[in-house]
Amino acid sequence: MSIHHEFIQSMQPKLVKWRRHFHRNPELGFMEYETTYAIGKELEALGFTLYIGRDALKSTSRYGVPSSKEIQQHEANVSSSMEESWLQKMNGGHTGLAAVWDTGRIGDHLAFRFDIDALPIEEKADDQHLPYKEGFHSQNPGVMHACGHDGHTAIGLGLAHFIATHTSELNGKFTFLFQPAEEGGRGAKAMTDKGWLNDVDYFYSGHIGIQDLPLGTVAASTKGFLASSKWNVTFKGQSSHAGMKPEDGRNALLAAATAATQLYAIPRHSEGVSRVNVGKLTAGNGRNIISDYGYIELETRGETKSINDYMQKEASRMIRASADMHHVESTIDFVGETEPMVCDDETISTIKESCGSSSMIKHIINTAQVSGSEDASFMMNVVQSHGGKATYMLFGTRLSDNHHSPAFDYEEEVLPVALDTYIHIVKGGHSLE
Amino acid sequence: MSIHHEFIQSMQPKLVKWRRHFHRNPELGFMEYETTYAIGKELEALGFTLYIGRDALKSTSRYGVPSSKEIQQHEANVSSSMEESWLQKMNGGHTGLAAVWDTGRIGDHLAFRFDIDALPIEEKADDQHLPYKEGFHSQNPGVMHACGHDGHTAIGLGLAHFIATHTSELNGKFTFLFQPAEEGGRGAKAMTDKGWLNDVDYFYSGHIGIQDLPLGTVAASTKGFLASSKWNVTFKGQSSHAGMKPEDGRNALLAAATAATQLYAIPRHSEGVSRVNVGKLTAGNGRNIISDYGYIELETRGETKSINDYMQKEASRMIRASADMHHVESTIDFVGETEPMVCDDETISTIKESCGSSSMIKHIINTAQVSGSEDASFMMNVVQSHGGKATYMLFGTRLSDNHHSPAFDYEEEVLPVALDTYIHIVKGGHSLE
Amino acid sequence: MSIHHEFIQSMQPKLVKWRRHFHRNPELGFMEYETTYAIGKELEALGFTLYIGRDALKSTSRYGVPSSKEIQQHEANVSSSMEESWLQKMNGGHTGLAAVWDTGRIGDHLAFRFDIDALPIEEKADDQHLPYKEGFHSQNPGVMHACGHDGHTAIGLGLAHFIATHTSELNGKFTFLFQPAEEGGRGAKAMTDKGWLNDVDYFYSGHIGIQDLPLGTVAASTKGFLASSKWNVTFKGQSSHAGMKPEDGRNALLAAATAATQLYAIPRHSEGVSRVNVGKLTAGNGRNIISDYGYIELETRGETKSINDYMQKEASRMIRASADMHHVESTIDFVGETEPMVCDDETISTIKESCGSSSMIKHIINTAQVSGSEDASFMMNVVQSHGGKATYMLFGTRLSDNHHSPAFDYEEEVLPVALDTYIHIVKGGHSLE
Amino acid sequence: MSIHHEFIQSMQPKLVKWRRHFHRNPELGFMEYETTYAIGKELEALGFTLYIGRDALKSTSRYGVPSSKEIQQHEANVSSSMEESWLQKMNGGHTGLAAVWDTGRIGDHLAFRFDIDALPIEEKADDQHLPYKEGFHSQNPGVMHACGHDGHTAIGLGLAHFIATHTSELNGKFTFLFQPAEEGGRGAKAMTDKGWLNDVDYFYSGHIGIQDLPLGTVAASTKGFLASSKWNVTFKGQSSHAGMKPEDGRNALLAAATAATQLYAIPRHSEGVSRVNVGKLTAGNGRNIISDYGYIELETRGETKSINDYMQKEASRMIRASADMHHVESTIDFVGETEPMVCDDETISTIKESCGSSSMIKHIINTAQVSGSEDASFMMNVVQSHGGKATYMLFGTRLSDNHHSPAFDYEEEVLPVALDTYIHIVKGGHSLE
Repeated sequence: MSIHHEFIQSMQPKLVKWRRHFHRNPELGFMEYETTYAIGKELEALGFTLYIGRDALKSTSRYGVPSSKEIQQHEANVSSSMEESWLQKMNGGHTGLAAVWDTGRIGDHLAFRFDIDALPIEEKADDQHLPYKEGFHSQNPGVMHACGHDGHTAIGLGLAHFIATHTSELNGKFTFLFQPAEEGGRGAKAMTDKGWLNDVDYFYSGHIGIQDLPLGTVAASTKGFLASSKWNVTFKGQSSHAGMKPEDGRNALLAAATAATQLYAIPRHSEGVSRVNVGKLTAGNGRNIISDYGYIELETRGETKSINDYMQKEASRMIRASADMHHVESTIDFVGETEPMVCDDETISTIKESCGSSSMIKHIINTAQVSGSEDASFMMNVVQSHGGKATYMLFGTRLSDNHHSPAFDYEEEVLPVALDTYIHIVKGGHSLE
Repeated sequence: MSIHHEFIQSMQPKLVKWRRHFHRNPELGFMEYETTYAIGKELEALGFTLYIGRDALKSTSRYGVPSSKEIQQHEANVSSSMEESWLQKMNGGHTGLAAVWDTGRIGDHLAFRFDIDALPIEEKADDQHLPYKEGFHSQNPGVMHACGHDGHTAIGLGLAHFIATHTSELNGKFTFLFQPAEEGGRGAKAMTDKGWLNDVDYFYSGHIGIQDLPLGTVAASTKGFLASSKWNVTFKGQSSHAGMKPEDGRNALLAAATAATQLYAIPRHSEGVSRVNVGKLTAGNGRNIISDYGYIELETRGETKSINDYMQKEASRMIRASADMHHVESTIDFVGETEPMVCDDETISTIKESCGSSSMIKHIINTAQVSGSEDASFMMNVVQSHGGKATYMLFGTRLSDNHHSPAFDYEEEVLPVALDTYIHIVKGGHSLE
Repeated sequence: MSIHHEFIQSMQPKLVKWRRHFHRNPELGFMEYETTYAIGKELEALGFTLYIGRDALKSTSRYGVPSSKEIQQHEANVSSSMEESWLQKMNGGHTGLAAVWDTGRIGDHLAFRFDIDALPIEEKADDQHLPYKEGFHSQNPGVMHACGHDGHTAIGLGLAHFIATHTSELNGKFTFLFQPAEEGGRGAKAMTDKGWLNDVDYFYSGHIGIQDLPLGTVAASTKGFLASSKWNVTFKGQSSHAGMKPEDGRNALLAAATAATQLYAIPRHSEGVSRVNVGKLTAGNGRNIISDYGYIELETRGETKSINDYMQKEASRMIRASADMHHVESTIDFVGETEPMVCDDETISTIKESCGSSSMIKHIINTAQVSGSEDASFMMNVVQSHGGKATYMLFGTRLSDNHHSPAFDYEEEVLPVALDTYIHIVKGGHSLE
Repeated sequence: MSIHHEFIQSMQPKLVKWRRHFHRNPELGFMEYETTYAIGKELEALGFTLYIGRDALKSTSRYGVPSSKEIQQHEANVSSSMEESWLQKMNGGHTGLAAVWDTGRIGDHLAFRFDIDALPIEEKADDQHLPYKEGFHSQNPGVMHACGHDGHTAIGLGLAHFIATHTSELNGKFTFLFQPAEEGGRGAKAMTDKGWLNDVDYFYSGHIGIQDLPLGTVAASTKGFLASSKWNVTFKGQSSHAGMKPEDGRNALLAAATAATQLYAIPRHSEGVSRVNVGKLTAGNGRNIISDYGYIELETRGETKSINDYMQKEASRMIRASADMHHVESTIDFVGETEPMVCDDETISTIKESCGSSSMIKHIINTAQVSGSEDASFMMNVVQSHGGKATYMLFGTRLSDNHHSPAFDYEEEVLPVALDTYIHIVKGGHSLE
């Protein structure tokens, strides 16, 4: 029996309600206006001190901010659904918030990070897909919570409720970071550079799914998150009529296509995991015009910073050569980054000891092997550089399809399990004796 | 001194005004609503019998009609600027019109074709570019008259004025085809299949520019227009997280890029000119997602139908192999077509003899070598199959940049030269004796 | 009835015998030792003045001479079958010969060029292939007369017999150029630069087959032979163990393969025929070693020198970019060249008028369209630059397979037809009145 | 002080002599005739029971046997340097030998494997390269001991000397497997399938270098050797004259080049290490002929059998698609294979305990991480499947360049260290108590 079984029981319908609300209203990175507003209003009611948008982020540390046009269009769409003062704080792509709860008693400073952004994916619309069947699928065409951040946000709200309503049992200080733009490694650095982690003693974050762990299983830490870099590349050539003057064209579509096909052939690295992906390519205007424009979005990853640097060096040369191959110009823009990260043994012990008494948490694994990338790495590395401890957990659930696929879904029963874990951490590891 | 020098003098300001109006308001193929309306109102006032939109086209013979969404969006934008009855005739992408003038006297039936569509190109915006400097550049972002069809339309209106005001001097019947969607070889077949050419004795069409001929020079015919085919190809794969599960993805972006890079390597054909171009490529949703979607727009061309068939056979196999290479599915949609065409000697003689007396037409070339494609070929081939005669002319002008480039422009003095040519044809070749 | 019908009748068995001898003993360019010796001994017996090997060629103007090793190995093989003095004149790859016959009477100086080299092709060995069935197929593994130069050589010998035995009927001077290394455009420039063509009044050469003309048909001239350039390209990278240290390799095999796949995608040129081919690629040493070495042999062609220059410029950039793509070095060696060429109308008239009376020559075409390349172009261009006239003919025959394919063969009856043509030219066009 | 310090001291010059002899006379896999003969004569003199060539191998289990032509040529070259009876046992590519020593006393059966083949690499010829400077570089052009098997063979001979001269101190049985064709995973299976490992209690093998370990350091086991597969692929197309009939060719050179460039782009696998390499590519006959023939040699590797199977499945589809892309046929031949392997803890303990007392062995590492492939895996897996124990060691040395590179070399002082290790194993772990 969990120490706060009743509280969690009572939160369960709310967790589902919140999760479904965010799932139905997904927003892309640095455009989480309604999401931030919904989170903020909930926390405001609980009495948290809020730092919204520009107050939560270092503006110039954001990577890969959408174009002004996209942002303004979305701001126009959402402006009627929130208070003007909130919009002021967020405008120009400054979403997310930090929320602080100080018990007033001496104690550790804990920070929790919950990511809140969705992905540019068209959600599947058939009855096999539960969100569609149950009617809470995305209302924003082409945008979808396909990585579980809707659940992360719900868990964060649940934990905030616990802390606000059990403050008398706790000591120290709690900082909640509802982070925008995790996808693409774009938002964490901006929160980190604002200084939120500078005096944090313990940092906890985590993810639903990722690994094929059963419901009720929690991994107390992860290893294998990769260093990564995100680039946008533009190719500029010369258009010409493809029938009448093919020899006058300088084909930027071909340069982009050549780069894409070549980048996957960067040699594997013997010292560890490497990755490369070109996730988007657009080029050309009309069928009979040799294209003067090409554009790709890519990322490289490495098990270590040095492997990622190797991938970047190779990629950079190949992109240049692809452009030269077709006599066009290329420009590389740097739009995102993550670091590798290492979880602390002390946090693993805390989790194992605290959660042992829960009936919801059936099994605790010390560490899970993963191979994606996480910009929580920036936060963890700053916490650790000041002597704090940090970990990144996984919460087991069956997945209906892979992360980032149109039919992605998870078991909603993972939400109370994750909340229970955080509560045990707060209570068992860092509460009043 | 031209026989109708004064008439042409009086039309000159109108030709420029019309040309600039259409240049300022370009519309893409099968979306020329305002263009058709402007032409139609002018002809209606002159007393032509009009066949608008659905009455001018065989609906099912149109190639490459834009998506309903694009059409509806454009219809919504233009609906306020025209009579409801006109919109009814054009709705769903049935633009263009046929206009008939019958002198009531026995005589030849002549048909003229003027194409009216623009291209998906962002017009250049600097003072070197005359339309920008003079303020008549495109008001529709991303759409531009970069092939001179604005001028063709103006010439057609000028010729209509001549016929209406000089009907007493003429005999026989005159059919004007203001054709939509020439770009991509999409519109001519739909007009042809409606039957307009079935009893035509003489067919005349032509183009501004194309060849590097000086102002005042007219080519009485062309050879070298290529057979061509236009395809859209869709690739469907499987998305997956590029960092965590790269091996589960089936990469449709790579399939599309591979197809593009390979198609250009179809071997040259020893029997004549061949061409291939992938003018557009879009694929992928997000940087860290292996793309499940790819799309290309391409065209093949050949000096003969058999060379174009060879290009199509090779392209088809390469596209299938590119899909198979990356374990994805491909679908080819056929969206446009042109035929090769041969101009008749009789029409060349007519032009040479009729135009010899003009002071505007300084030089007449029998035939000009070209290498683009023209869907007027469908019209010419039908005229000739019924024993009629046909030609396709060129009207010389200096060009500021290649056709289909953002800085394309021509000398407006070519407009009266072309009008003069058509008038001489009508008068000298086919008028009352 | 041909004027020299009986002479030709008597030569017919010899033409076949010679042709089959050369077919059975094919030798590659600049290694035609036995071939040159066989030709030379025949001409020596007839009384021609001979210029063998080094006396016939400008050594430094040879393109693409085989390696010393290959040459020495072949010299060792053939040394026992010829006089030492002949070998001395040819050694180091100086094959071919010039043979001069002076009638002692004032008159025109005529030059004839016959090419004598074979190709690196393994001849087909089945009974459908006549040379195999009749037992005169290649005795040199991997080498084959697959372009008809065996026949050209036989025709040349036949013509030499005619001139030697009919000298009393002739005037002027006759120069025979039995040229090595026509394949690859490697030998003609070396003969040309030796000065043989400097005072020639009329130059005649020709080819068996090429076009699909029936036996008995002769084309008096050709148009369409392309300018061409021949390159060898070497790529130098860094080897590494492919399993243990893939990242340390710089893959020259991939650079060569990338160059090959890209070169075919050089855009077509609107002003005329262009070609590119990578005919050979070798790279790598062992399966598990990242290759430090790659090598390709390629050629470009163009209808005009300027189109060929365009092809070379594009190819050069693509090769450099392919090397850069894989971080390796590339070196381009220039090993062969042909020029475009234009046949003279005067020679066409001569042929038509002279050959009209022959019963073997059933049909004479003014000119045939072709699209290969010919280094006789160097000879023709020099003749014409001095005011002489030149032509290049085709002799019709059914072909069992394409030129340069392992099953290539032609009708041996074409040999007397071609000989008859040359005799008529000599007699009708340029003999004693 | 090592227990057999004096014996090793006395062997040291012999180890160097042997090693340099084999280095000077390298032979490729399944062509190690002189190598086998030299080993055999040495062992024969010591009194070993020998099983030569066909008696040591299961003929049909050999992978990737060279062509009859290559084998016969090499047999002709070496026939004069050995007894006819030996040649008889080896002819047709049956090289290597098994040598058995039975102490006549009950005890464990130990097997040792030493690989004896060289690589198709041209050895570096400059004074920085010790074998060249000291005059023992390869006498066989294009063949080189670039992986240390010359040293392995020398160590094996040293160990055989020890056992023969110290038999009174030992019990049980010792089998020496001097294995041909380790490179490419081609020889071990043939020895394994002959049954040599079926009743072996302990199996020891090892490698010089591989890891960057200092001289005197021994790794008692390895992990990370990859499953691998070796393929030869042939592409068959249609040749044609590249200038005159490009459209008739079916380009097998392009198919091979396309396959090579694509294979490197097989997606990385999330569950572990994967590799692919095309180590050799040859295609085409002549510059102006579209190639009808292409050939590649490739290997795939995987950390597990299942990852290697994934690589094979992807490679197979890509090869087929590359062929289809260029309309040619492809055939895949399976020519080599290795399995993953796991060393036993018991053997690690034996080595650590036995070798602790040696002064030559400065440091023993439990296990070293590697990432190549080893066909000793077949032997180890059979030993283990019968309940025996097996390990694969590494012997530290500085390397002058990577394995498989033309300047590869190692410190000869590693030879006595390795010999000492084997002697300690024999004495300490498995000798008379």
